[in-house]
Amino acid sequence: MIVPIYLENNTAIKYNVTIDTLPKLTYNRKVAIVTNTTVSALHLETLKSKINADELFVVTVEDGEEFKNLATVESILNQLFEHKLDRKSLLIALGGGVIGDMTGFTASLYQRGIGFVQVPTTLLSQVDASVGGKTGVNNSYGKNLIGAFYQPEAVFIDTEFLKTLPKREFAAGIAEIVKMAVMFDKAYFDFLMEADFRKKAVLEKVIQRSVELKAEVVNLDEKESGIRAVLNYGHTFGHVVENETNYKTYLHGEAVAIGIMMVNALAVELKMMTQIEMNLVTKFLEKHDLPTKYEIKEVDAFYDKFFLDKKAANNKLKFILPQGIGGHMIRDDISKDVLKKVLKAF
Amino acid sequence: MIVPIYLENNTAIKYNVTIDTLPKLTYNRKVAIVTNTTVSALHLETLKSKINADELFVVTVEDGEEFKNLATVESILNQLFEHKLDRKSLLIALGGGVIGDMTGFTASLYQRGIGFVQVPTTLLSQVDASVGGKTGVNNSYGKNLIGAFYQPEAVFIDTEFLKTLPKREFAAGIAEIVKMAVMFDKAYFDFLMEADFRKKAVLEKVIQRSVELKAEVVNLDEKESGIRAVLNYGHTFGHVVENETNYKTYLHGEAVAIGIMMVNALAVELKMMTQIEMNLVTKFLEKHDLPTKYEIKEVDAFYDKFFLDKKAANNKLKFILPQGIGGHMIRDDISKDVLKKVLKAF
Repeated sequence: MIVPIYLENNTAIKYNVTIDTLPKLTYNRKVAIVTNTTVSALHLETLKSKINADELFVVTVEDGEEFKNLATVESILNQLFEHKLDRKSLLIALGGGVIGDMTGFTASLYQRGIGFVQVPTTLLSQVDASVGGKTGVNNSYGKNLIGAFYQPEAVFIDTEFLKTLPKREFAAGIAEIVKMAVMFDKAYFDFLMEADFRKKAVLEKVIQRSVELKAEVVNLDEKESGIRAVLNYGHTFGHVVENETNYKTYLHGEAVAIGIMMVNALAVELKMMTQIEMNLVTKFLEKHDLPTKYEIKEVDAFYDKFFLDKKAANNKLKFILPQGIGGHMIRDDISKDVLKKVLKAF
Repeated sequence: MIVPIYLENNTAIKYNVTIDTLPKLTYNRKVAIVTNTTVSALHLETLKSKINADELFVVTVEDGEEFKNLATVESILNQLFEHKLDRKSLLIALGGGVIGDMTGFTASLYQRGIGFVQVPTTLLSQVDASVGGKTGVNNSYGKNLIGAFYQPEAVFIDTEFLKTLPKREFAAGIAEIVKMAVMFDKAYFDFLMEADFRKKAVLEKVIQRSVELKAEVVNLDEKESGIRAVLNYGHTFGHVVENETNYKTYLHGEAVAIGIMMVNALAVELKMMTQIEMNLVTKFLEKHDLPTKYEIKEVDAFYDKFFLDKKAANNKLKFILPQGIGGHMIRDDISKDVLKKVLKAF
């Protein structure tokens, strides 16, 4: 199936998200595949066998969130310059969210911007990261703090890639799926509660619904001046968890699961969600072996790290809160006392 | 006077270029001025005295094209994170083209993009670099090879800043002025031949005309897929000259002057320009003490460096040639033999 992406309320299709067996890809351009050591061993030959290009290069980087930084982007750029890619050349991101974010960012920078295509190989990147044009890297101040809004030319999602995905990474993707449901769609949440993700048809339906919901939001607000921030449900807390653990202990989706737990607790405290609703979400996360507990050692230090979040403007913290299940509200009026009370329970 | 800039054939004004005494600037945002050690000593207090902001920081970098690289941008970014700038914050570039390009690029990267304002203090940046949204840095492969198209919120041009500009830098700006005239406007070229640049009224007229011409071109083709490339007249050769001399021997405008000499010689060889027309341009460059000679040591090495130019696509070199004075043509059919013949004469 094909989900067309429109942008800035335009009626013109900006690019398509294809959810199907990876098709043959023909390019009258130089093409560089960007991937990591792990994915390369599993799927590079499959992708290469599908591509017909003027010239084809492969750039391989180390695997892991800890390599999602400017130094890696610079090393990719240097390899592209060595291969003399030009303004008409194309990058193809083969991998998960880290590879997709870095490849898109690199494409945005190379000679002020060349085309790129996403071939996401993890559940997380298939349902979320590969669509919407957020690209970038982490630095010592936090996650994705350096980057660009830069849209791909196309996204090709093939669930076949997920067969080699470690169970833990698969679960991490489920955190981003339930995020969309809790924020926007109660019926979808009910469906997810019963869904058997091992079935290809279920997986494709879930990917399609996630991409559709994301596309709707991104179309309304590409540059995240408003509603797009809702996609960061669980992320404000999750980013601090990742930062505190040096991006090493948790996968991104796992940190989001913890973040969802924290912000749900805040929502219950603010009477925006019932204890029963919170428990439903918790049960879903636990069922998929996602972490739901995190020990906050210093509440003040944890609190201070909120201000590194990109949503904090004019020293005001912005929280994406669930309103029951299927609804959302962005609030910037949460007092430090309430936050610390909630954090202390973790 | 105010020159409005429209973009992508839009009827909405994107931003204004104000050519006048620097006005009072009030911002309900955090503001960081980015400048260099030289400009800071001369003009920082003037700018600070005009700004009323929530908080005001200054980031000072080393002066010189050799610091226009990713490492400097990263150090600016780190200082912005230290000052906890948020998505609503603003950068103000106070300086020449290097500061403007790096500040705009940094603004494009910080949290995926914050606002920036140009306060150009050199003739080159006042007539050219501060308008149009090309931002970026150099690397070992060439000039401006890493960057973004990212437009400022406003440009404030005050010729008062030029009073402290070294004669050599002033002349470098004149190279970019004559570039616009040779490419687009014979009458303007005739005016420039007689112009006394020491007069404020003349300067303001010249800046206005340059900005108008540039705005017209950028509006037609912001991302340089077509006519915007014409603004690179003299630059394809000039960039190689800068690269060969490690960006140390020549100011950018000086390298452009040499590049104009080379591409004019090519135009004469191709019978697109007469010897008389070429001599007129040469005379103008010499009158303003711009370099018109450059010794090419190895023609083959010089030729190979053309391929690093961003305009080279699918291994085809693209040259921006004058057609007489006031006209232009983009050609990608120039043979290596013809090029080497022209280069050998230098």
